[in-house]
Amino acid sequence: MSLMWTVKVVGLGAVALSLSLEALAWLHRRLRPGKILNEVLFFPSETACVQHIFTPPSPYSCFCSLPHGVETSFSRLLSYLMSASSSLDLCVFAFSNMDLCRAVVALHHRGVNVRVLTDKDYSAITGSQIGVLRKAGICVRSDINSVYMHHKFAVVDGRLLITGSLNWTLTAVQSNMENVIITEEPDLVRPFIQEFRRLWMQNDPTQYHDSSEQKAARVMGESNN
Amino acid sequence: MSLMWTVKVVGLGAVALSLSLEALAWLHRRLRPGKILNEVLFFPSETACVQHIFTPPSPYSCFCSLPHGVETSFSRLLSYLMSASSSLDLCVFAFSNMDLCRAVVALHHRGVNVRVLTDKDYSAITGSQIGVLRKAGICVRSDINSVYMHHKFAVVDGRLLITGSLNWTLTAVQSNMENVIITEEPDLVRPFIQEFRRLWMQNDPTQYHDSSEQKAARVMGESNN
Repeated sequence: MSLMWTVKVVGLGAVALSLSLEALAWLHRRLRPGKILNEVLFFPSETACVQHIFTPPSPYSCFCSLPHGVETSFSRLLSYLMSASSSLDLCVFAFSNMDLCRAVVALHHRGVNVRVLTDKDYSAITGSQIGVLRKAGICVRSDINSVYMHHKFAVVDGRLLITGSLNWTLTAVQSNMENVIITEEPDLVRPFIQEFRRLWMQNDPTQYHDSSEQKAARVMGESNN
Repeated sequence: MSLMWTVKVVGLGAVALSLSLEALAWLHRRLRPGKILNEVLFFPSETACVQHIFTPPSPYSCFCSLPHGVETSFSRLLSYLMSASSSLDLCVFAFSNMDLCRAVVALHHRGVNVRVLTDKDYSAITGSQIGVLRKAGICVRSDINSVYMHHKFAVVDGRLLITGSLNWTLTAVQSNMENVIITEEPDLVRPFIQEFRRLWMQNDPTQYHDSSEQKAARVMGESNN
């Protein structure tokens, strides 16, 4: 009889143990619902056709002379950008890359809420696409409070951060050594959302009061690349 | 008697449950030894004395006219840099900031293995600290394979990544809108370690063979800030 009870006690203990293990594993899965996206893209990017990103699904529908069906750093960057479904907050120093401009305009036409903050001086340089964005009806603000608004980041749908050394130019994409981080890590995304909100409000054109000190501070002497 | 055994069984089950919970919590702590460091610094930074970072522990040992005992984006950046104990791999486009130069030289003198990769053109501009690093005996290589070596990242002890839009200049720190990410996230740190290794080998001066095409590609026309 005593042996039988011992067996029962051990059995019940084992059942309790396995049940609690199951419960904890379930809890663990619930608290961490999957791996957080963290990716790094390096440039210069190989050159390849990106037409299929704008007109999916076929990667072979374009007949240009560039390689087709090749995934590159640039095509991945474009794809992450085009994944926006509700909002795109873009804060970029130099913006002359026509494919990136096409992506931003396409998102705007798709109904995505696009806001662009750029550097006052560089929005007027030759090849800048800022005018194209404005003409498309996208809300663009220029930073007037610093020597350079030197950020190069985008926040997609308030959840995905795209940031790095890469200006949105053709040379940066095709010729320079550059990096772009793609991350959903909340501790990294959150500060950029807050900073965008701060800069966006700070550069509201209805609130402009560019003091002479600020103007004087806009020196061009030192390298800021 | 039956009731007594039931009590014992339930009691033992509870003990087994709590023990297994403890064991799992311990295992969880072992597998995730703490929150991974993720921080974002924004610039321009407030100006404050950073002397205490070079000569700790007192923040009040310097008598300069700058504010003392104030933590700023720049002081945090310097502190993370100075936390290096074994290695610093630095890949930076423009390097003219004297405090950052002082930090890198101090690390070198402390025995930290410092490697610096920089842009060929920008290492020769007025105010560049690259010459100071070379004179201090730090191993510096210049990128000759791209139009611009435009990275601005550092890897501390092969574990901490410092990267962003910020060039290592005074204007970038004090006058521009800039960002720097500080992260220990392995999925972000690892690619930068690999990229540094690749670029370091690619720019080994014993292997230089700068072709005329590469020279021709070094156009200066487009903005690459």
